[in-house]
Parts: sequence; C-alpha cells; structure tokens
Amino acid sequence: MNYQKPMDIEKKSFEIITKELGDVELNPMEEPIIKRVIHTTADFDYLDNLYFSPGAVEQALETLKEGCVIVTDTQMARSGINKAALQKSESEAICFMSDEDVAEEAKARGITRAAVSMERAASIGKPLIFAAGNAPTALLTLCRLIEEGKVSPKLIIGVPVGFVNVVESKEAVIRSDVPCIVARGRKGGSNVAAAIVNALLYMAFPRE
Amino acid sequence: MNYQKPMDIEKKSFEIITKELGDVELNPMEEPIIKRVIHTTADFDYLDNLYFSPGAVEQALETLKEGCVIVTDTQMARSGINKAALQKSESEAICFMSDEDVAEEAKARGITRAAVSMERAASIGKPLIFAAGNAPTALLTLCRLIEEGKVSPKLIIGVPVGFVNVVESKEAVIRSDVPCIVARGRKGGSNVAAAIVNALLYMAFPRE
Repeated sequence: MNYQKPMDIEKKSFEIITKELGDVELNPMEEPIIKRVIHTTADFDYLDNLYFSPGAVEQALETLKEGCVIVTDTQMARSGINKAALQKSESEAICFMSDEDVAEEAKARGITRAAVSMERAASIGKPLIFAAGNAPTALLTLCRLIEEGKVSPKLIIGVPVGFVNVVESKEAVIRSDVPCIVARGRKGGSNVAAAIVNALLYMAFPRE
Repeated sequence: MNYQKPMDIEKKSFEIITKELGDVELNPMEEPIIKRVIHTTADFDYLDNLYFSPGAVEQALETLKEGCVIVTDTQMARSGINKAALQKSESEAICFMSDEDVAEEAKARGITRAAVSMERAASIGKPLIFAAGNAPTALLTLCRLIEEGKVSPKLIIGVPVGFVNVVESKEAVIRSDVPCIVARGRKGGSNVAAAIVNALLYMAFPRE
C-alpha cells in the first residue's frame, strides 16, 4: 500500500461519501457539515439525524470569523478540534470538566460537573459557541440559563450520545429557539461535536 | 428532570442496552467491551463488527494488571481514557502525534505522523497496548514492525474509522496473529478506541 497524503485520503473519502449519498439534495450550507460527520463516524444515519435551525450555520460562521470561545463538555471534544483552524479564527476552545473546583462544586450542590461547567462558561464575557457531545445535563443547564437570560449562545452544537435523557435534552435545545445544530435521537458523541466544529472552521477559513 | 448520578445513568444505560440486545448470547469476556462500545456510540452495529482474537481479552487484563504503556494514534483517544482507572493500573497512556519532531520526521520521510509515532512507540522498553482509532497507517506500520520482529504488542485495538485503506488495515491486523480487538468494516473512531481501553480497565480494576 503506497503512502498517500492525509489531505488526499480525506479528499478521496469525501468523494466516496458523495457517491454513496447518490442523488440526495443537500442544503449547501449544511452539506460540508453532514459529510464531515459521516466522514468521522462512517455512519450514514447522520444524513437524517442532523437538525439545523434556520440561519444557524450562517451565524456560526460569522461568529468564528469574529473570534469566539468554544466551550465543550469533554476534554475529548476539545482535543478533537483542529488546532491550526482554531488559530486562524483567533478563537479558543475550553473545557472546565477536569477543573478540581468544578468537581467540588458539583459534589457540594449535587449536580453534574457538566452543569457547573456550563454555568461557568455563561459568565465568560465573549461570544460563545457550545459543543456538547456527552452530557445531557450540559444542554439542560444551557436551556435553563437561556430562559433566565443568563447566556445567549451564538450556537449550540447539541450532540450527546446515549440512552438516558439524551433525546429529551436535544429536543429541549431545538425548542429553545437558540441557533443550533443537533443530532436527533441517541447518536452523537465527542467525536461528532469536534467534527461539526471543524467543519464550521473549515467553511469559515478554507484550507488550501 | 431530576438530577441523577452519572454512575446511575450509566447503569440504566447498560440495562437498556442489555434489554435491546435481547436473547443474543455473548462471550462473557467480550460482553462488557461490546456493551461499552454500544454505550459510547449508541450504535448496535458493533455487536456484529467487533472481532476478538482468541485469548486477547485475557492477555490484555493480565497486561493491565502488571502495568503497561497504552499508545494511541490521536490525542482524542488518549483524552478519552479514564484517568482514575489508568492510575489504578499503574499504566500510562501516551500519544506522539503532536510532537514536533514526529511531524518533521514524517515530512522528511514522506510517511504519516502515525507511522512515525508507532516506530517511536516500538522502542519503548515496556509492555505495550496499542489503541488506534484513526490512522490505517498506524496499523500497517505495526504489522510491518511485528513482521520485522521489532515490536511484540500485548494487544492491538484496531478501530480506525473511514473509507480509504481502513478495512484493509484492520484485516491485516487480524491476519498478523497478534492479540487484537478489531472493529471490522468502516466504523470505529477515537471514541471507540478509548471505550475499549476503558472497558478493559474496568474489567481489570472493578469500580465500586
């Protein structure tokens, strides 16, 4: 097997995905995101699962071009965000989940670390994009903070995976009227959250 | 929605998975791994995809109990490994992918960073478990190093995801006769690699 450059392999992978999608007509603003999630998971279910609120992608691109803080609910999602692309956008990706004082506060209040993390993020005085691939409580906390007028995210990427409270938390985000990209149903994950952030970064700052 | 402890949610999730699996009979050594991968992906395809070489799980548990180095092909997979469980096993998880000199060497030789990373790992003088969720070239390089007698992994977790060279690289691992756990087909990912490592750690060092 000959050596192939990573970008060539990525290009070929997207060609295969496009071919296998066949005649499906995709919204051009959503297409690169849907295809990147399929590229990350090899799971064509995301063709049907991904929900985009009207104008969400446009607002996300604008936010990334102006620079923002991307808040994740796992270190894994943060790790998966392309560093070079992030640098171009002068944005930063942060995650409070491993902070010791977050763990202490969560324990003291009997809530999850993800919930405490979202509260902390809400007080950052910068434009915010949230990317949750793990914790339903991250999304439910965000919905509460939005209702209370305590945070106004530019975008919520709501893609936790799992079997308990997951579907409900994602539907709550869709109902919240905040710009969102959501993987409806049980599927998602930190890898999917990172893939969506990367797709948006590559749209805002095209690679050669 | 009331607050539920993360461990309670995990327990309930596994109950749902068990219920939905129905009457399927699983090998008791493989069952916790298959269920954890389904838990991580909400994708029941892994019931059929996961291949275990004979005795692979037993040898992995022994290796983890004695302490080893777990080498990943992405920072994302490394991030996803449970820190507390890792500490109990006195093992460490490492990833060379972001090292600048790895990038330089890869560029100079016209090979992937993943290939260089595997070569570096091969020279670590400790028992090794490899967990690759991304790069087919990581697996192909390992197969070559094994053939050349330069490395003798205790286990290869071969679960790259994708459309180009992925299936072939995973089948090459299965043919190599090294103890392995492989996600056959296109599916896999850094999240799956981390989930398999965590399942093994929880088997070797049961949580309360």
